Amino acid sequence: MDIHDELPRVTPRSTHLTEEAWSIWDGKVKPQLSLGRLEHIVVDIANMVEDLHPQLGRPQLLLFAADHGIVAEKVSSSPQEITWQQCENFARGEGAIGLLCKLNGLDLHVIDVGVAHTFSPQANIRDKKIGWGTQNFLYHAAMTELQLSQVLQEGASMVQARYDLGHRVFAFGEMGIGNTTSASAIMACSTPYTVEECTGRGAGLDDAGILHKCSIIRKAIEKWNYPADPLEILRVFGGFEIAAIVGGMIQAAHLHSVILVDGFITSVAAAIAIAVRSFCSDYMIFCHTSQEAGHARLLEYLHAQPIVSLGMRLGEGTGAAIAWPIIRNALQLYEQMNSFASAKVTDSVTLLRKRGVDAHAWKE
Amino acid sequence: MDIHDELPRVTPRSTHLTEEAWSIWDGKVKPQLSLGRLEHIVVDIANMVEDLHPQLGRPQLLLFAADHGIVAEKVSSSPQEITWQQCENFARGEGAIGLLCKLNGLDLHVIDVGVAHTFSPQANIRDKKIGWGTQNFLYHAAMTELQLSQVLQEGASMVQARYDLGHRVFAFGEMGIGNTTSASAIMACSTPYTVEECTGRGAGLDDAGILHKCSIIRKAIEKWNYPADPLEILRVFGGFEIAAIVGGMIQAAHLHSVILVDGFITSVAAAIAIAVRSFCSDYMIFCHTSQEAGHARLLEYLHAQPIVSLGMRLGEGTGAAIAWPIIRNALQLYEQMNSFASAKVTDSVTLLRKRGVDAHAWKE
Repeated sequence: MDIHDELPRVTPRSTHLTEEAWSIWDGKVKPQLSLGRLEHIVVDIANMVEDLHPQLGRPQLLLFAADHGIVAEKVSSSPQEITWQQCENFARGEGAIGLLCKLNGLDLHVIDVGVAHTFSPQANIRDKKIGWGTQNFLYHAAMTELQLSQVLQEGASMVQARYDLGHRVFAFGEMGIGNTTSASAIMACSTPYTVEECTGRGAGLDDAGILHKCSIIRKAIEKWNYPADPLEILRVFGGFEIAAIVGGMIQAAHLHSVILVDGFITSVAAAIAIAVRSFCSDYMIFCHTSQEAGHARLLEYLHAQPIVSLGMRLGEGTGAAIAWPIIRNALQLYEQMNSFASAKVTDSVTLLRKRGVDAHAWKE
Repeated sequence: MDIHDELPRVTPRSTHLTEEAWSIWDGKVKPQLSLGRLEHIVVDIANMVEDLHPQLGRPQLLLFAADHGIVAEKVSSSPQEITWQQCENFARGEGAIGLLCKLNGLDLHVIDVGVAHTFSPQANIRDKKIGWGTQNFLYHAAMTELQLSQVLQEGASMVQARYDLGHRVFAFGEMGIGNTTSASAIMACSTPYTVEECTGRGAGLDDAGILHKCSIIRKAIEKWNYPADPLEILRVFGGFEIAAIVGGMIQAAHLHSVILVDGFITSVAAAIAIAVRSFCSDYMIFCHTSQEAGHARLLEYLHAQPIVSLGMRLGEGTGAAIAWPIIRNALQLYEQMNSFASAKVTDSVTLLRKRGVDAHAWKE
């Protein structure tokens, strides 16, 4: 697919700062490695942005929204109008993600890449509409090649614009009634898991609803003859918001920025981004294991160990917003915590080292 | 033991507000139960403090410090002077816990219940010294009955004083070189696990150091003939800071306040508090699974599922301080998130209910 070549290249994460970053941690007034995962997160971030003292700006939560033609098959318990209604709610700084972004210091941007609604100019929603929802992928490809190319580019442009303002951390939210169906279809084509293993309740299906959702996904995958190319999978099963996230993630990785990955939809986008540009994973921090069936399996497939597992299944980027204070704490400890010398505390680490003991040998 | 009867009684957590609290969550503009664990945390807290809209004040982190006679047996990689040096560091608002408390809005109190050092009055450390460290429990009980009674009371008094100022959330930190040895001995006597399963590296022992630590603990347990009474276990194996935390936890539970439990030492104190007053567990929120060997097993024994698992093994109350923003987010979402009606979003939950579907049936 030509689109593959249009996408920017992604180089591996640097390793140059590893030693220096660890030596900063090892000078802190605490047993070596005793801040566990927090220490690893900061060493990774320093290498991602190639800065021993990362200047990250504010985390940017790009929430892409779109509608899904597949809802005609009654795969969701929620009416489609909730997509635009929630977009307006979020853009007012409300709803779960609006509130969490305000509380935890993330900048929220709501971007319409395909909502079946005309927003008023007062709604504070960016108009990057590619279409009025995707096609019903049981009958037609969710989007055309041109649409896929455009929406990947919109995602990338949003990241680039915020990067140009000095921001280096990107989280991705999504809103789109029907998008777990799209995501499950993509996952089923991209991983060894069965449709059943990839499919969950979404916003609130009952058991019969899940069976129906699975049968629609199976039919669609058969109709499209089990596509294998990741961009073709994305084009056929949509949605616009998922593709925009893929474009945004690849751009963020291209720019050596930090990507916060959270829920099921976002992780499916991450899987596609990695399938297209494998080193994207070097720039990803997985934030939350969702309760949505399939997410835990997808994380295992991606060898990802999220920072928290709070059993949320809300999407919107809430997993990234709730995990961000932990990442921020890690960075703050790295920059602000005092050393043995300045704290006037005996450096037993150095004593240990004199006895030939290497605390790093215990790193998991 | 008479001390048992001196301790305040603890009544079970209320269940009266469960239904009302859930109906507040269910009115929020999101799929029912989609905030997962966050929703459960708030329902629990409302019942703990018996207030549908909990007024919690600021979380109080009571960091009790003491030295341990058992360090004479070379069970720690760190010199004993680190206990008092770190106390001074924390009391200046520095070190990991000093910084995390400042960053995350917890009030930190450093309380000397048995440090082998005289602090200057300028050090901002409360003097509640019971002794200059415990006795070496390989030869003598760590403390006398009178000392145990006194230190339990000191822990309780600290909680009561902060409660009287309107605070309803209590976290417990500890500082005491040698205290993982004390805690492992207590755990080995209080649970079905072997000494090896209860014993870890502490601040930084190597493999030979762990073997030695285990042999000392085994010898001591044999000498004391496998005590079974939880308060006797606490008295014999100490330390003062662990006992102060036990007293503080029982008092907090007595006062129907919220107890944040984090690391290995604090969880051992929690196990003793529960063994003495079983309903203490109704008021506990477990915050973090430590990397210290034994902690994961102890949590399993207590049927506790901590909010985060970041592989820290630092103690000091850092696990509670790092998890607090998640609990605070849960409370903020519960109080501030808007409803379907105020957000002008279609209430698909009510639509579902009209179709006879009960989203709560999916609660794990």
